[in-house]
Amino acid sequence: MEYMQVNRANGRAANELRPVKLTRGVMKHAHGSCLAEFGDTRVLCAATIEEGVPGWRKGAKAGWVTAEYAMLPASTGKRCKREYANRKGRSMEIERLIGRSLRTVVNMKALGEYTVTVDCDVIQADGGTRTASITGAWVALHDALAMWVEAGKIERIPLTGQVAAISMGVVDGNTMLDLDYSEDSHAEVDMNLVATDTGEIIELQGTGEQAPFDRKRLNALLDLGDKGIAELIELQRQALA
Amino acid sequence: MEYMQVNRANGRAANELRPVKLTRGVMKHAHGSCLAEFGDTRVLCAATIEEGVPGWRKGAKAGWVTAEYAMLPASTGKRCKREYANRKGRSMEIERLIGRSLRTVVNMKALGEYTVTVDCDVIQADGGTRTASITGAWVALHDALAMWVEAGKIERIPLTGQVAAISMGVVDGNTMLDLDYSEDSHAEVDMNLVATDTGEIIELQGTGEQAPFDRKRLNALLDLGDKGIAELIELQRQALA
Amino acid sequence: MEYMQVNRANGRAANELRPVKLTRGVMKHAHGSCLAEFGDTRVLCAATIEEGVPGWRKGAKAGWVTAEYAMLPASTGKRCKREYANRKGRSMEIERLIGRSLRTVVNMKALGEYTVTVDCDVIQADGGTRTASITGAWVALHDALAMWVEAGKIERIPLTGQVAAISMGVVDGNTMLDLDYSEDSHAEVDMNLVATDTGEIIELQGTGEQAPFDRKRLNALLDLGDKGIAELIELQRQALA
Amino acid sequence: MEYMQVNRANGRAANELRPVKLTRGVMKHAHGSCLAEFGDTRVLCAATIEEGVPGWRKGAKAGWVTAEYAMLPASTGKRCKREYANRKGRSMEIERLIGRSLRTVVNMKALGEYTVTVDCDVIQADGGTRTASITGAWVALHDALAMWVEAGKIERIPLTGQVAAISMGVVDGNTMLDLDYSEDSHAEVDMNLVATDTGEIIELQGTGEQAPFDRKRLNALLDLGDKGIAELIELQRQALA
Amino acid sequence: MEYMQVNRANGRAANELRPVKLTRGVMKHAHGSCLAEFGDTRVLCAATIEEGVPGWRKGAKAGWVTAEYAMLPASTGKRCKREYANRKGRSMEIERLIGRSLRTVVNMKALGEYTVTVDCDVIQADGGTRTASITGAWVALHDALAMWVEAGKIERIPLTGQVAAISMGVVDGNTMLDLDYSEDSHAEVDMNLVATDTGEIIELQGTGEQAPFDRKRLNALLDLGDKGIAELIELQRQALA
Amino acid sequence: MEYMQVNRANGRAANELRPVKLTRGVMKHAHGSCLAEFGDTRVLCAATIEEGVPGWRKGAKAGWVTAEYAMLPASTGKRCKREYANRKGRSMEIERLIGRSLRTVVNMKALGEYTVTVDCDVIQADGGTRTASITGAWVALHDALAMWVEAGKIERIPLTGQVAAISMGVVDGNTMLDLDYSEDSHAEVDMNLVATDTGEIIELQGTGEQAPFDRKRLNALLDLGDKGIAELIELQRQALA
Repeated sequence: MEYMQVNRANGRAANELRPVKLTRGVMKHAHGSCLAEFGDTRVLCAATIEEGVPGWRKGAKAGWVTAEYAMLPASTGKRCKREYANRKGRSMEIERLIGRSLRTVVNMKALGEYTVTVDCDVIQADGGTRTASITGAWVALHDALAMWVEAGKIERIPLTGQVAAISMGVVDGNTMLDLDYSEDSHAEVDMNLVATDTGEIIELQGTGEQAPFDRKRLNALLDLGDKGIAELIELQRQALA
Repeated sequence: MEYMQVNRANGRAANELRPVKLTRGVMKHAHGSCLAEFGDTRVLCAATIEEGVPGWRKGAKAGWVTAEYAMLPASTGKRCKREYANRKGRSMEIERLIGRSLRTVVNMKALGEYTVTVDCDVIQADGGTRTASITGAWVALHDALAMWVEAGKIERIPLTGQVAAISMGVVDGNTMLDLDYSEDSHAEVDMNLVATDTGEIIELQGTGEQAPFDRKRLNALLDLGDKGIAELIELQRQALA
Repeated sequence: MEYMQVNRANGRAANELRPVKLTRGVMKHAHGSCLAEFGDTRVLCAATIEEGVPGWRKGAKAGWVTAEYAMLPASTGKRCKREYANRKGRSMEIERLIGRSLRTVVNMKALGEYTVTVDCDVIQADGGTRTASITGAWVALHDALAMWVEAGKIERIPLTGQVAAISMGVVDGNTMLDLDYSEDSHAEVDMNLVATDTGEIIELQGTGEQAPFDRKRLNALLDLGDKGIAELIELQRQALA
Repeated sequence: MEYMQVNRANGRAANELRPVKLTRGVMKHAHGSCLAEFGDTRVLCAATIEEGVPGWRKGAKAGWVTAEYAMLPASTGKRCKREYANRKGRSMEIERLIGRSLRTVVNMKALGEYTVTVDCDVIQADGGTRTASITGAWVALHDALAMWVEAGKIERIPLTGQVAAISMGVVDGNTMLDLDYSEDSHAEVDMNLVATDTGEIIELQGTGEQAPFDRKRLNALLDLGDKGIAELIELQRQALA
Repeated sequence: MEYMQVNRANGRAANELRPVKLTRGVMKHAHGSCLAEFGDTRVLCAATIEEGVPGWRKGAKAGWVTAEYAMLPASTGKRCKREYANRKGRSMEIERLIGRSLRTVVNMKALGEYTVTVDCDVIQADGGTRTASITGAWVALHDALAMWVEAGKIERIPLTGQVAAISMGVVDGNTMLDLDYSEDSHAEVDMNLVATDTGEIIELQGTGEQAPFDRKRLNALLDLGDKGIAELIELQRQALA
Repeated sequence: MEYMQVNRANGRAANELRPVKLTRGVMKHAHGSCLAEFGDTRVLCAATIEEGVPGWRKGAKAGWVTAEYAMLPASTGKRCKREYANRKGRSMEIERLIGRSLRTVVNMKALGEYTVTVDCDVIQADGGTRTASITGAWVALHDALAMWVEAGKIERIPLTGQVAAISMGVVDGNTMLDLDYSEDSHAEVDMNLVATDTGEIIELQGTGEQAPFDRKRLNALLDLGDKGIAELIELQRQALA
């Protein structure tokens, strides 16, 4: 396969994930938490459950799951400003994506009138912060829901499956899995795949701003993505074991 | 084919676009403008060229293309508030998408130190406002650049191709092209495809919040999308003829 | 009369309106709508009725009418920025004026606890956007109220009269009706008159920032204004016929 | 005359001003200052001159005069909130009016590249805060310019005349001068006149939200206004003497 | 004592307050008001009582006291901008301090479900605006509560004591009481003391940004502060007598 | 001594610090970083050096040091909202305190025209976040400056000493060092001391909102504080060794 000969940091193969660690229970006050590390990218995911639902959802007798995403100023190579007055479009896009991804596997009726907020705070950024966020957020969400079961507030964990996310891209013409920042910053094609433990697609976002791509390339990227997702799903299982 | 028997408004086939109209030159002051109509969806696209580039791009001896997207309050079924203090994440996501899509086909060096802003204002919304925006924005951009050529400010139109966009989705299990609002609002899968006149993909965004989907379904959706893009590219050509 | 010899675009006489068109029913979702054109100035007016009234008016058993005004960025000769973080004083002044003008002819008790919002969005600006807004807003308001009567929510249209608005000014020493942008931008005196179908004044705003004016000049301007208002009132009638 | 029999607080006649006091030099740091009192309405006006002009005016070799207007929270009967995040349209309207009024009598070329900001802060409100602001602001502006002359920065005071402002209105059918809050709050017609020492009109704003009015009424109101302006102009002269 | 030989404006001794005036009843609409003057520093303090308490305090069957602090733009030597979009940290710090100081001596249960807001608006600044604010705010608060007693809404004034505040500092090595702006702006140590009529400390804030200080110096500063507080407490008593 | 018999979590004595850990080099991109842990309180401190100084300091040929402080939403027992539109006064107060404290020991001339920003992000809060922030910020600042020396941009580390901070308080009548959240939340007196390695005071802030305190109590609190500062200074030394 073409992507086997590529030169990547640490001798990584084109279809290989960076070392991934999912560490649970890292925050004392959160109902569920997970530090997700994809290589040097580190995201602190914390799930908090609160009573009630947003105004527009009242009366639906169903819960809600939402997410917030932010980067610490010193998480990036060049210090980034805190988004006080002006939220960045990028941050809002990512937190909307995280929320949608998680909601796909939550049975809202079974959750009942609770709102789960999953905070994904990037401690260190080296590419793939949104995929690490989603993958870790699912673990934090799971643990918060498990605590709710233990507390007797809901009968069983209202999850219908697992969710993980991974990036793929085309760099210098090569198709690759899980881009780090040095790869991502000059990729011709950049793609993110969010999928379930059954391998079905929840969200697919691909952009060829530097170079449009064809269906064949898309399929090659998706093959890589499927492999990455399967490995992340397994890592989530091990973390929960 | 499965999608031929579906019941759609006005007897439309599953793989059929709504009536599309691209009307140029609709605004007196804009350097280029186009009213894009996809059925009842109407978006006013206006391209303005200004001297200079954003601060972060200074010294690059290259131009910039950006987009803004907004909806008139009465464009939607239920009046939507103007986004004064709080921009909506959705709007920012869409205007970022429009900008990226257009930039893919602009030769920034050939443009020189000019900034083109394409305003996409939704006059009436009935699904597909982002795809109508992109398809119309390209025409407005083309005409603004053509005016710049006429004015002797650049030698030739610095475009490397055409860009159009279309939505596809799964509604009640059926795969469909160019969803209107009534279809979109209960679609299981919602997808947007931005592509060039050579059929290559610039941007692909698919979400299965209601129901994850597999590779086979993805391919069926992309087949529909390719057909739609080809027709829109042809309609742009006719508009410019 | 002095104002007859003046040179205006298209051979227009000093006391002559630009061609005015009031086109109803131009927006699918609004309860009432009107595209008001005063020469090249085009304003899209849309009236939406919603249940309830603002908090401060609760318990009054009476309705409320308010307006919003904005310009599309490309509506002006030089692209104007969207007013996201900072509303402009000018825009707020104009929307307050539109609201006050409309409220004068609405019987709020008869309207009952509904709020009508009239959005005036300037599609193209060539002077007189506030007068076109008011004149078209009244038509949109009328049609929204008529729809409410048809829907059986109120018994009859709670309007006590018509409202129209026109500008007058002194340009190069000449008194003129309905200034376009090229005239307005170097006028010595700039005046706006809002009046009813009985010719009574609802609002009169005149400013002589470039040159103060006396009572005689004021009367000459008001004579012009009365003529303009009478013609606009008649055009509203024809539009509704 | 009809307005002689009216019952007003303190036996005031319909065409009579409230006691007006203009006290200069009330602020240590301002270049010019004036406490303007119209009955119980008290406005602190302070003029500050700074080097340079706003960006849009650079290169014009001319100065600029602007104004800011605000109310102390406890200045009104019911405490009003500070306008931090959201400026009120009313405040912006008033400060724009003050600025326009002052600029009419300033020779900007003679002022040179300085910006004068006149702050009008309402300490206590009892109707007529905008007219007290303008009348006092002119005195503060005069004194700041006089200090600039003394400091040798400009040769002579670049004022072409005086500016004062007064309100008129129709209350319970009676035409009255200088309305206090109890009158203003239920006036049928509310009018503000800004004029020069030669009696010419700089700005005229009349609103008949409660009851439209005719030309005859307008003339009666203007007669009252002319009388009030003449008295205020004289009081300004006495203050400066 | 070292601080007796120091050269201060107007021959003031190092341990001497500037002339202090506390003038009550200066605002018509406020429930209690006090103009506090510490030399050339003038702060207008106005207390307003409103029904109800902030949301987070509902159900506590107790009242709340809060404060707001702002400076008029021309109150300072160099005109300061109004804090519209961006509150300054300094202002928020001061208004939080005023609120805390007042709350210490209010019996919230006895006050009942009312909120008192004390507005402290700096008319003129010459150092010590926060100490003048607190000292005057207590008088305004007292008078507002007294009016509430008179109105029969509460049985007795729910105050447990008096509160006053004063600054101390080290300037050119000398320990001084009640710094004016010329002293404060180059002080090595800057300290504020808020205390009760029994001489107990409510708040102590000292900063040695220019030069750290030791315990001995701290005690010398506190000795000065105790003297100043005692005098201010007496002046409050005289004002209320 | 009175404070020896008190019951604290983990058998801690009244004059005992919680276990303190200062871990350097925890962030890949920051020029200097330190994770400061005071018991369960964890603050990530990151120092970034950028070229240039804020506008108001230009031309001074001297550097600047500033700080930012924020809490992760899930760092607290009850999730706290991100401060997007509205900064909290508390956060601004704390970041101003951190900045002032650090600046006291920086030789700005020797630093030259660089700005150091120290971000203090609270990962977990259990009382004393501001004191942990200052203590850790100094280490991060030191390491960033050391990197600048290594990079040859400055000759030597422009620090004149060490800075640490600790809290003291009165809880149930007992004087205590380094309060955790359960103690702090019902303390009668709450005090923070920032001091240098020579034991001199940089900043002292004490508040007796629940119960005013006398000079004797103040001295007892300061004795505790001196002990805590000395231990923290030593821990900083060990961390840097």
